[in-house]
Amino acid sequence: MFKKTLFLLIISLSLLFTDCYSQTNEVLTVIQNRKSVRNFTGESVSKDDLNLILKAGMCAPTAVNKQPWNFVVVTDRATLDLLAEKLPSAKMLSKAGAAIIICAIPEKANGGLVEYAVIDCSLAGENILLAVESLGLGGIWTACYPNEDRMKTVRTILGIPENIIPLNVMPIGHPTGEDKPKDKFNSENIRWEKW
Amino acid sequence: MFKKTLFLLIISLSLLFTDCYSQTNEVLTVIQNRKSVRNFTGESVSKDDLNLILKAGMCAPTAVNKQPWNFVVVTDRATLDLLAEKLPSAKMLSKAGAAIIICAIPEKANGGLVEYAVIDCSLAGENILLAVESLGLGGIWTACYPNEDRMKTVRTILGIPENIIPLNVMPIGHPTGEDKPKDKFNSENIRWEKW
Repeated sequence: MFKKTLFLLIISLSLLFTDCYSQTNEVLTVIQNRKSVRNFTGESVSKDDLNLILKAGMCAPTAVNKQPWNFVVVTDRATLDLLAEKLPSAKMLSKAGAAIIICAIPEKANGGLVEYAVIDCSLAGENILLAVESLGLGGIWTACYPNEDRMKTVRTILGIPENIIPLNVMPIGHPTGEDKPKDKFNSENIRWEKW
Repeated sequence: MFKKTLFLLIISLSLLFTDCYSQTNEVLTVIQNRKSVRNFTGESVSKDDLNLILKAGMCAPTAVNKQPWNFVVVTDRATLDLLAEKLPSAKMLSKAGAAIIICAIPEKANGGLVEYAVIDCSLAGENILLAVESLGLGGIWTACYPNEDRMKTVRTILGIPENIIPLNVMPIGHPTGEDKPKDKFNSENIRWEKW
């Protein structure tokens, strides 16, 4: 009986520590595992997940805390298909369950500057991509700004005003598993102490 | 003895599941807990941590996978102090253990565009801030681009060429604990289906 107790204790503690260890830095793991997902199953994305993803987006820092953003979320099949048809760069929308379009609002940004609006919204976009990956979903940033044609297309389809910048179109959905992360580490991109 | 076994089993499994549950989505937790840290203890940051942080930065997606970036890492006390003195926006460098300056390289970016270089580097910056938070360190994005004076100061001190954009200066260090995350969730920033 003592042996059995000891055995169970060891097994349980091992499981516990293995688990702790493997998750010691789940953030770095998810950052490394995030990939641009272009292949989706066609399943929808739950509203609960979309809300978690949007909440993560709004956690990004913004210059002077201006939060110069709006997030348009599309789940309507017809709209996703229309966006896929009109935006060759976002044709994976035909199998995605949703799309988030991050809209930068220069007049709300620090100093009214387009640059800060774009940077702030870009940080929100990375939070969104990581939240998506962490939930077992897949996503991809397809660029809209600064391409005038794409911005016009997105503004027209979604009714976005001229003074608002649709920064990107982010298809989100259930990944088929085909897409894999790239290893982009390159020590030559690091410069210690000065350029 | 049987009771003791059962008791240990229950305790161990409870610990295991509590742990699993609390870490079910550590990514969302860290995204929410990330704060702009302005108060540092003055301790140095280990090179191992800096390497993990830089690796996380390079995991960000870039337009057409161009990776139009370089990362200047400063740990030298005199350089940190000089940057703190010349950049009022980054005076917290005097107590930070390190700084990362993300350098955007327009000529490497998709189409040679400044906009893509800046967006790509911004995503890397958010990865860096999240990696920092996940390691129990603190960081803050202090803007450099598009402020000409700040870019000139940083280029001069770090020897960065004219054609390279020092996007930001990110003090990184051990937080005193004074800085807290802001709740920036605002449902009015979400628009369902169209603008």
